[in-house]
Amino acid sequence: MILEHAVLHIKPEEADTFEKTFQKAQTIISAMKGYIRHSVSKCMEEDYKYLLLVEWETIEDHEIGFRKSPEYQEWKALLHHFYDPFPIVQHYQPVLI
Amino acid sequence: MILEHAVLHIKPEEADTFEKTFQKAQTIISAMKGYIRHSVSKCMEEDYKYLLLVEWETIEDHEIGFRKSPEYQEWKALLHHFYDPFPIVQHYQPVLI
Repeated sequence: MILEHAVLHIKPEEADTFEKTFQKAQTIISAMKGYIRHSVSKCMEEDYKYLLLVEWETIEDHEIGFRKSPEYQEWKALLHHFYDPFPIVQHYQPVLI
Repeated sequence: MILEHAVLHIKPEEADTFEKTFQKAQTIISAMKGYIRHSVSKCMEEDYKYLLLVEWETIEDHEIGFRKSPEYQEWKALLHHFYDPFPIVQHYQPVLI
């Protein structure tokens, strides 16, 4: 398992619709090969800041299987306009339990 | 449940002992009131970078129960010298499943 990690900064004027749109968008990612689970959480210290965590079986499931898919274009159209700046997405590998 | 989130930048010269020391330190946090679970993961794109996630029942369990405890002094002594810069710790509340 690897963990996709992105801190999302949402444009204040679009914050109201972000959570609703994400609820729709998450059905896209949840259906992809190698998807395990995801969570979206809201920062308690800073407004308009969210944390997206997605567990994938392999990094290729995310970077190739998802990002090169037609479904990614739909995901992008639904979500990318909410972000400012565009998030830095990185991957983490569990090392300690 | 709330999620404590910290990206940890480890001093390169101390990287070898960080994971081993964390394995010892995690027994401290795991025994605290309100602790649910934690994970430590290693960044795949950047050296010496880790992600610490801790689930707590409430933010007070972390900020008061843990941080004001004698156990925190032990945690601090074991781990804080590994970090450069000192991490920004924030809390996130799940909003979407």
